[in-house]
Amino acid sequence: MNDTELSLVDAVAAQAAQAAPQFARTEYAVRRRLLESIADAIDGAADQLVPLARAETNLPEARLRGEVARTTYQLRSFARLLLDGRQLGIAIEHSDPAFPLGGPSPDLRMMSLPVGPVAVFAASNFPFAFSVAGGDTASALAAGCPVVVKAHPGHPSLSRATADLIRGVLDDLALPTGIFGMIEGQEAGVRLVQHPAIRAAAFTGSTAGGRALFDIATRRPEPIPFYGELGSINPVYVTREAMGADADAIAAGFVDSYTTGAGQLCTKPGVVFVPARHRTFARTVLERIDSVQPARLLNDAIAGAFERSGAYFDRTEGVTVLRRGGDTGDGFTPALFTTSLDAFLQSSESLTHERFGPSALLVEYEDAERLASAAQVIGGTLTSTIHADAVDDAGLTGLLPVAAQMSGRLIWNSWPTGVTVSPAMMHGGPYPASTAPLHTSVGATAIARFLRPVAFQGFPDEALPAELRESNPLGLARSVDSLRAEPGDGPRKAAE
Amino acid sequence: MNDTELSLVDAVAAQAAQAAPQFARTEYAVRRRLLESIADAIDGAADQLVPLARAETNLPEARLRGEVARTTYQLRSFARLLLDGRQLGIAIEHSDPAFPLGGPSPDLRMMSLPVGPVAVFAASNFPFAFSVAGGDTASALAAGCPVVVKAHPGHPSLSRATADLIRGVLDDLALPTGIFGMIEGQEAGVRLVQHPAIRAAAFTGSTAGGRALFDIATRRPEPIPFYGELGSINPVYVTREAMGADADAIAAGFVDSYTTGAGQLCTKPGVVFVPARHRTFARTVLERIDSVQPARLLNDAIAGAFERSGAYFDRTEGVTVLRRGGDTGDGFTPALFTTSLDAFLQSSESLTHERFGPSALLVEYEDAERLASAAQVIGGTLTSTIHADAVDDAGLTGLLPVAAQMSGRLIWNSWPTGVTVSPAMMHGGPYPASTAPLHTSVGATAIARFLRPVAFQGFPDEALPAELRESNPLGLARSVDSLRAEPGDGPRKAAE
Repeated sequence: MNDTELSLVDAVAAQAAQAAPQFARTEYAVRRRLLESIADAIDGAADQLVPLARAETNLPEARLRGEVARTTYQLRSFARLLLDGRQLGIAIEHSDPAFPLGGPSPDLRMMSLPVGPVAVFAASNFPFAFSVAGGDTASALAAGCPVVVKAHPGHPSLSRATADLIRGVLDDLALPTGIFGMIEGQEAGVRLVQHPAIRAAAFTGSTAGGRALFDIATRRPEPIPFYGELGSINPVYVTREAMGADADAIAAGFVDSYTTGAGQLCTKPGVVFVPARHRTFARTVLERIDSVQPARLLNDAIAGAFERSGAYFDRTEGVTVLRRGGDTGDGFTPALFTTSLDAFLQSSESLTHERFGPSALLVEYEDAERLASAAQVIGGTLTSTIHADAVDDAGLTGLLPVAAQMSGRLIWNSWPTGVTVSPAMMHGGPYPASTAPLHTSVGATAIARFLRPVAFQGFPDEALPAELRESNPLGLARSVDSLRAEPGDGPRKAAE
Repeated sequence: MNDTELSLVDAVAAQAAQAAPQFARTEYAVRRRLLESIADAIDGAADQLVPLARAETNLPEARLRGEVARTTYQLRSFARLLLDGRQLGIAIEHSDPAFPLGGPSPDLRMMSLPVGPVAVFAASNFPFAFSVAGGDTASALAAGCPVVVKAHPGHPSLSRATADLIRGVLDDLALPTGIFGMIEGQEAGVRLVQHPAIRAAAFTGSTAGGRALFDIATRRPEPIPFYGELGSINPVYVTREAMGADADAIAAGFVDSYTTGAGQLCTKPGVVFVPARHRTFARTVLERIDSVQPARLLNDAIAGAFERSGAYFDRTEGVTVLRRGGDTGDGFTPALFTTSLDAFLQSSESLTHERFGPSALLVEYEDAERLASAAQVIGGTLTSTIHADAVDDAGLTGLLPVAAQMSGRLIWNSWPTGVTVSPAMMHGGPYPASTAPLHTSVGATAIARFLRPVAFQGFPDEALPAELRESNPLGLARSVDSLRAEPGDGPRKAAE
């Protein structure tokens, strides 16, 4: 990277730092307006943006149209979240004359403030929803943090066009241009994470790339939080009872889930555990696979990595190729491998690698009680999916707590792909699913990544931020004197 | 460290891992009983514990009695917190047939689960409240996580006695012994942070020691969250108007705050900014200092470091020694240095080092508008304190937002020492105040460090944890369908 490019990163980061205090103080109504206007601008430009995305990502039109809708819904959801200020976690504790530790306690009021400029690393596989104006950007802006996006090289024209829309909205609203910046190039991204002005970073992508950036973020003189969503193999566990009831539907659902988006989703079910020797399941799966249209991968780098990573399965003892899959010239057909639970447990090192693309592994088990060991060996994952007839199906008692311990989300009788934008969504999980396993990158609570609680002690009302004033002039959700009751006195006072 | 000691760490960590699933499923009533019983046991043994602490820490009886009360209050507060389950952050979103992104949304229910075994590094300066049964242990146990304490070498007998009490309570309640373990020795501590069974670590201590452990935690193959409270100089800003109104009281409060506990508090005000050339302030401060009784430091290591660290000030141009302080043989008398704001800004590198012990720096300013620059240069700190006559005192408009950005807690016309245990307390802050600046180590929300949200999608009621069942059988605080309103429709539905 030459000096000009380095100075560009420094300039963009410095602009973000300069805009941060003003943006932090911007009224919530203005911040909502910003989010909604970006959503409107993207919806309004969809006919221009979708063709750019088509050309750069090989993703089909319908999928991209759906992704635009998801992206603008997300922006509007965060705008709505700001209405009652719940994201601020306001807690007010009045001075308590009867405080048991030596006299009156001070008046203490806590609320969250924006952490400062955030670096957002765009992903390749969701050129709208996890890219320039995606969930990380939306949640950081909603928190009141300037954003510097490191564009993904997989869709540069779309990235620039989206960035232009955001800049246009900032202009229209007369907000500082430093609230949003964008840079390009891998070295520029590294310099961005190292820049003292950057206070947090969000990333969705490969385990190798994400870990490298996490290491940079944590080795800074002043380390910063790094919210990285890295790899996940999203195991699916099918009980014998479920298979007895509905093998055909499970087979179809499985193939649809692992091949949708050409298998390039972070929640793709990469490994499915099924009872051994089912009469028709594998056959139904293969028939369904053979009817899947070949699909181009996002770009040549991903296609190349997909071809190489098949070797993990080829080279592992006890693994059988059911469909090798491969490039037809017109896109990839899906791959499918199978093995036994014993072989899986023995070779878990290689078989728990995420293979990005349309590939999955069927693992046949004899003893459902051993599924818990499989979940243990798989380790951190975004999702675990259960197909069951009932909660007392064999193996579930052991499996469910381990799966919960290893996952951000548990799914019952459905499939992990399709991540709902919801206040109850958890898109994260123990490493490597996330480098920050207490946080989600999808849904309302994603905003918590960019907010830091600050307590105000003994302030006169007029010196407090409006959010904390006694009269609650902004009408926000607040918790007041919430633990004062003695044990047994029942639940806390309700929020205002 | 020899092999036996290493195996001991491994054994304790393995026991914790084994106990984790059972402890995670323990009823909240039992977990409350555990916390309250530990509190009762410590209160009941105070007459044996306080003399041990006296002998090992040089801290006075009254302070230690107060600390016992604080410690048991803390344990009981966390027990009370479990009554309504607010720490679980339960969010329930029913399937929405009108969900705008392509048909009905799934039923999603989120709650937090314990992260697993937690390593707790005890501090030297609070042998009860930040040690074996202190806030980190209390919040981790309240979260449902087994705890392995790395005892502080400064008070080994007290640590062992406290650990025995906790083990006794576990026995009495017939809970697994793996819920609490203790190890000793620096190398044992390093091995603990590296141990795969440990899922999070909490630390209070020096910047050097904490950073070293943070680096170990983040360089693991699977990095874990490291909640480290490291160093803080806790600046105090006195406006000209405040000084005009109340110089004597400010002088007295300042000396009391920086010399209490022999200056060995994480919130000691290490630097105080006052208007230049006040007629009586410095004289009053010095008179007050000269009446402070010499006080022994916690141990020889801390005393040695205190003597050496005076050099930071001695060697810095523009710094004047007002009182050198030093060891009278019967304890240390306080040290006080002074400099100008210009010199402070020029030599901030050396003058912003935390000096642990009874030492402070008075910085005289001419222009109150430059206080914001001082706050900027100081960087991350647990607290910032304002002494003001009114919110429109000169300099405050610029200073307050910068101080908020750099601090976990802002204090108005009081002093930072004495950290109230409260749901609105924030004891943390930007690095180096904390390695995890979004989290507090004191107060109710400290429990959030050890809880990880998990979403349950499409589960039948009987397969859900009781916390998430439709009928809310445990009567917990829950947020339901909280963002369904359209923009402008007003605040969300109230919690149940």
